[in-house]
Amino acid sequence: MGMVGGGRGAFIGAVHRMAAALDGEIELVCGAFSSNPEKSRLSGEDLCLDPKRIYGSYKEMIQKEKRLPENKRMDFVAIVTPNHMHYPPAKMALENGFHVVCDKPLCFTMKEALALEKLVEETGLLFALTHNYTGYPMVKQARAMVKNGDIGEIRKIVVEYPQGWLTNKVEDTGYKQAEWRTDPTKSGIAGAMGDIGTHAENLAEYITGLKISEMCADISTFVPGRLLDDDGNVLLHFEGGAKGILHASQISAGEENDLNIRIYGTKAGLKWSQMEPNSLIVKWLDKPTEVIRTGVGKLYPAATAHTRIPGGHPEGYLEAFANIYRNFAICLRARLDGKQADAVYHDYPTVRDGVRGMKFIEKVIASGKSKAKWVSM
Amino acid sequence: MGMVGGGRGAFIGAVHRMAAALDGEIELVCGAFSSNPEKSRLSGEDLCLDPKRIYGSYKEMIQKEKRLPENKRMDFVAIVTPNHMHYPPAKMALENGFHVVCDKPLCFTMKEALALEKLVEETGLLFALTHNYTGYPMVKQARAMVKNGDIGEIRKIVVEYPQGWLTNKVEDTGYKQAEWRTDPTKSGIAGAMGDIGTHAENLAEYITGLKISEMCADISTFVPGRLLDDDGNVLLHFEGGAKGILHASQISAGEENDLNIRIYGTKAGLKWSQMEPNSLIVKWLDKPTEVIRTGVGKLYPAATAHTRIPGGHPEGYLEAFANIYRNFAICLRARLDGKQADAVYHDYPTVRDGVRGMKFIEKVIASGKSKAKWVSM
Amino acid sequence: MGMVGGGRGAFIGAVHRMAAALDGEIELVCGAFSSNPEKSRLSGEDLCLDPKRIYGSYKEMIQKEKRLPENKRMDFVAIVTPNHMHYPPAKMALENGFHVVCDKPLCFTMKEALALEKLVEETGLLFALTHNYTGYPMVKQARAMVKNGDIGEIRKIVVEYPQGWLTNKVEDTGYKQAEWRTDPTKSGIAGAMGDIGTHAENLAEYITGLKISEMCADISTFVPGRLLDDDGNVLLHFEGGAKGILHASQISAGEENDLNIRIYGTKAGLKWSQMEPNSLIVKWLDKPTEVIRTGVGKLYPAATAHTRIPGGHPEGYLEAFANIYRNFAICLRARLDGKQADAVYHDYPTVRDGVRGMKFIEKVIASGKSKAKWVSM
Amino acid sequence: MGMVGGGRGAFIGAVHRMAAALDGEIELVCGAFSSNPEKSRLSGEDLCLDPKRIYGSYKEMIQKEKRLPENKRMDFVAIVTPNHMHYPPAKMALENGFHVVCDKPLCFTMKEALALEKLVEETGLLFALTHNYTGYPMVKQARAMVKNGDIGEIRKIVVEYPQGWLTNKVEDTGYKQAEWRTDPTKSGIAGAMGDIGTHAENLAEYITGLKISEMCADISTFVPGRLLDDDGNVLLHFEGGAKGILHASQISAGEENDLNIRIYGTKAGLKWSQMEPNSLIVKWLDKPTEVIRTGVGKLYPAATAHTRIPGGHPEGYLEAFANIYRNFAICLRARLDGKQADAVYHDYPTVRDGVRGMKFIEKVIASGKSKAKWVSM
Repeated sequence: MGMVGGGRGAFIGAVHRMAAALDGEIELVCGAFSSNPEKSRLSGEDLCLDPKRIYGSYKEMIQKEKRLPENKRMDFVAIVTPNHMHYPPAKMALENGFHVVCDKPLCFTMKEALALEKLVEETGLLFALTHNYTGYPMVKQARAMVKNGDIGEIRKIVVEYPQGWLTNKVEDTGYKQAEWRTDPTKSGIAGAMGDIGTHAENLAEYITGLKISEMCADISTFVPGRLLDDDGNVLLHFEGGAKGILHASQISAGEENDLNIRIYGTKAGLKWSQMEPNSLIVKWLDKPTEVIRTGVGKLYPAATAHTRIPGGHPEGYLEAFANIYRNFAICLRARLDGKQADAVYHDYPTVRDGVRGMKFIEKVIASGKSKAKWVSM
Repeated sequence: MGMVGGGRGAFIGAVHRMAAALDGEIELVCGAFSSNPEKSRLSGEDLCLDPKRIYGSYKEMIQKEKRLPENKRMDFVAIVTPNHMHYPPAKMALENGFHVVCDKPLCFTMKEALALEKLVEETGLLFALTHNYTGYPMVKQARAMVKNGDIGEIRKIVVEYPQGWLTNKVEDTGYKQAEWRTDPTKSGIAGAMGDIGTHAENLAEYITGLKISEMCADISTFVPGRLLDDDGNVLLHFEGGAKGILHASQISAGEENDLNIRIYGTKAGLKWSQMEPNSLIVKWLDKPTEVIRTGVGKLYPAATAHTRIPGGHPEGYLEAFANIYRNFAICLRARLDGKQADAVYHDYPTVRDGVRGMKFIEKVIASGKSKAKWVSM
Repeated sequence: MGMVGGGRGAFIGAVHRMAAALDGEIELVCGAFSSNPEKSRLSGEDLCLDPKRIYGSYKEMIQKEKRLPENKRMDFVAIVTPNHMHYPPAKMALENGFHVVCDKPLCFTMKEALALEKLVEETGLLFALTHNYTGYPMVKQARAMVKNGDIGEIRKIVVEYPQGWLTNKVEDTGYKQAEWRTDPTKSGIAGAMGDIGTHAENLAEYITGLKISEMCADISTFVPGRLLDDDGNVLLHFEGGAKGILHASQISAGEENDLNIRIYGTKAGLKWSQMEPNSLIVKWLDKPTEVIRTGVGKLYPAATAHTRIPGGHPEGYLEAFANIYRNFAICLRARLDGKQADAVYHDYPTVRDGVRGMKFIEKVIASGKSKAKWVSM
Repeated sequence: MGMVGGGRGAFIGAVHRMAAALDGEIELVCGAFSSNPEKSRLSGEDLCLDPKRIYGSYKEMIQKEKRLPENKRMDFVAIVTPNHMHYPPAKMALENGFHVVCDKPLCFTMKEALALEKLVEETGLLFALTHNYTGYPMVKQARAMVKNGDIGEIRKIVVEYPQGWLTNKVEDTGYKQAEWRTDPTKSGIAGAMGDIGTHAENLAEYITGLKISEMCADISTFVPGRLLDDDGNVLLHFEGGAKGILHASQISAGEENDLNIRIYGTKAGLKWSQMEPNSLIVKWLDKPTEVIRTGVGKLYPAATAHTRIPGGHPEGYLEAFANIYRNFAICLRARLDGKQADAVYHDYPTVRDGVRGMKFIEKVIASGKSKAKWVSM
């Protein structure tokens, strides 16, 4: 693995490295950790990399790695830069035959998204997008239950993603994570809806298998002077008739990272919350509520295959994130070995989820500005 | 107290009686418990009433009680019939000088609502509406905190009322509570939105002191053949700029009665849930989350005045309901004694809350049918 | 009902009155609310009693009530005084033909306890002891599950009753509730173990149907200068081989009133907590944990018979307390009518539970002082 | 790192490997994964190790690694075998100049424990014992709060470790994890008390800084035919006067891995539960209960230094486990570099904790057999 971005002080780069390292299947061999070559060098040294493989730019990295013998060069590129810097390295990596793992959202514009999708199709290379929350075992259990009809036909979906860390204008205080996320030249047309709204959209569609067909959005910027949205409330219609609510916020004072979802079918309701990720609540219509737990009892294979330790030993965010890396690595290794990975591991978000997310961003912002009640997606 | 409705088999009538009895301030002295005189008689006997004061109709009750000496007759009428039968006895009671406690929603149509409001103003009589959920001590604490500025300026409100008991078409199975609630000739123009949506609306406005200014509703009837809505998702704008979401449902399979609210200000978020009513969660922006508890420590007077027992001894639905009756009784007794009750007890929903609720019903159903995004309230 | 004790400022007297009033089956007709006749009079006036039936002492009350015609006099005496004043009025009431409801613990000494037990047997009168926590529907559900073998053979029981209100020496600050509870001349030989340890003992034996056979206690007084125990940790052996732990404390800083119990059988574990009384957690050995809820779905008759309102509307401490009064009233009324009450209502703690509790107090204090490991009960 | 044990099918070996890999500070370079050389080879191949460094026995590994140049050989040995096989490789590693990470309990007998302690002192080598539960950030926060006097003087400690997985005699069904843990020739004199009781003991002493001075134990074997204890209830006295309860069980049906602790001081109570490890509940005597959360707000340095990701992204068992490895690695690297690691990282369990644990095992089993009430520790 070669990394683009994620130098000293970055948050998500370190997360990607831990997630990639956890299972001992992936080795970080090189990186261009910053657009500042000196910072890149220092960051690479922190990570004990071979100094020759610490690069000053993603371009240099891709070019030089390509010249290495096949069994020495990096197998794939992990892109962990801010949104506006996803597309260029992803494009160049794909064009030069490298597989890609990319942070979300996919890129900066819908046009870039479609170009990437096309490129992935043409090259046949693997492309994983780190919508990490779908990596939790209980999310996979929920998806399997829905697919198997356990909760009946879905009628209503409520998905929420409240955070409070942008309640004040912290982007003016030198807080890097806040700076770029509230800067339209780095984040794109959306703030909260792009940063976390897409996670909510992805989670809802992943678990239910239903696609949002139209939406009605109320998008707000509460903090004076902020340039992008920091809160959004959205009514949803899904293909097939289910209805829903999605709301995401970064000004919900006191909230940490409370992504959660409730799904109501004709037989039962499901409830999952990212902050207590090892419990899946099943509210049956005609028997006591059940608490399904990671690693406990008989679960669907998709849940079991993504669990590392026995029940009662909490698995968290990094393990879920690592599930994406592990599945990507398993599929990549199988491909390199000319084999086919077990179907249970063909389960990581791809460029298509990325395109879907970009479309959601485009439409939800459009709906927020529209006077029409419904905007189709 | 004389009761209209609430005969054998009724749910809410028994609740009103227990709520009225709890504090030993109110005595049930007569009733017209059913439109069926025989059923009324049997119901009254169950309650050990003087047979002469068990009446065959509310008309008979009001007429005969009025003829009794002032110190013997009932002081007020409690109306616990289905919605379409609120207005006639309420009107007649007021016109004959009796104070009224009425179940919610106030009545059947907006026209009736306004007529009652006018009558209350003209007669100067007391009129309580049992929006019982505002009777909980922690709801009153939340309201006082908001009023006192503890959580800063309010930006976002999320209020939910999911139930699951109408997931199937139980109104066809002889289930009385379901029958009238899904029958437009008894419930009015709304199903879920009238039955429980109004509680959500009332709770949000009560705690925050903010009025809904406009709304955008997605109203559904999921159960085939049902005549009224059984689910609604609503975007809200409040006067002053706060935004919100209200959703209420009777097809959220597996949910019991999970009325809950979250309120986000510039300093903190509040969370209260009816099913764990003795905890009020305060999520501070800059210090650890606090759990404020009924009867524990220093609370606002409004919370303390509505708490009966020491902390850790859970108070529930009946105690909250009884707080409305008790406050009504205290105010009524003060009035009869020519005194003024302490301000802390002038805290029960009135005919104005009822009119507000009827307006909400009217507007939310209109918005559900409208193609315009926003409908003003 | 005539009340002994419970004048102005008392806590438990008001609880008894609310519990008795809730269901409209019991009327407070007289009382001797204080050993101070003037205070008794004022307290009785607060309650709107007939001045002639407000008495200056329990003796006066019993004597004068007895002289009233049978259909006018009180049917039973409710004793809500501190522990040392349970026996005299209880004895006199029984000797004069009045049934009794008595607060717990039963009395002051084992000798008194046995005398009362004998008197109840001889007179054949009804005697209820308000071990109120067994009045919760989910406690009754748990008991029925155990009885029915749902959780298999019981192996381990953990029962806890932590409170924190005596963490400081509040008995020196004029706090009445603390004063008598820490005063050996009013409470007896035990402090925390008598006040709340007996509730824990009663709860464990009630649910499991098992009797404590021997115990090993570590009894402490942590607050300097306090005369009675404020904390106790006890190992338990039950008849039949189950083992357990009981701990009760009034110096567990920050705890409200967290009586809770866990029971482990060969098939499942049960967990119930008084502060969330409407949930009974069933941890199955081989299927997902279930949450059984008051008023929801199919429950054992004993749970259903003691539930007043539909699921999701929390019932609390007063409702549980009222279940004891209601059952007592139903049994008493049946007896007065020469009938037999339904078996499901023959479910309230009696003088025998009281004797058992007194024995527990005696033995647990003895064990605390003993150097032998086990003290038999 | 070279590993002893942890071949295919082992549980704790994989945990150690993930914990060591997470932070990219430690590389697995060799191993003797099984006493069966063929199984060791296959296991090593699974892990992509250099075939030359997959050894057939720990002896071979230590001997051959020692012959490698200093900068090539493993720096330390990780021992992840069953209890009876901790001592021999630990001793040999130390004698040959290798640092050691060892799973708990330290070894098989008290004699071995003391020998190891002596050897560590003599060699001056680093020795970490993986009492992993003390690696959680909120455990470190709790410890810092106690040390800083935030909760006042400690009076009472309740520590529990219930599991249910040995409710049935699963050791007869081919379940490896159960087999050796219930076999006195592999586990030693204790079953549950050694396997998990020691974790409880270690957690209590780590957080409070208090030492158990004497104990009174009730040790049971509930499952017929089982050779070691599967349940234990223990009264504790701590140096300085605090009292406590420790109970651990593997027959608490339906429990997963619910290690939890409550600590009551004169100012507040603390509550932490391993299954919700990112919350630390502080129950203040005189203000609302607080929920302190991993990564949120101002925490003690010891908590912050052991947190990897922002608040609201749950960290779990593996991250806590990895904190021991990371601290060990940081201290080891500093030592190899001739430096001193920051004091905050000198925080991992050592051979002394191991000796303490062995002593606890010895005493608790002795107390279980003793007729005397208290056995000193």
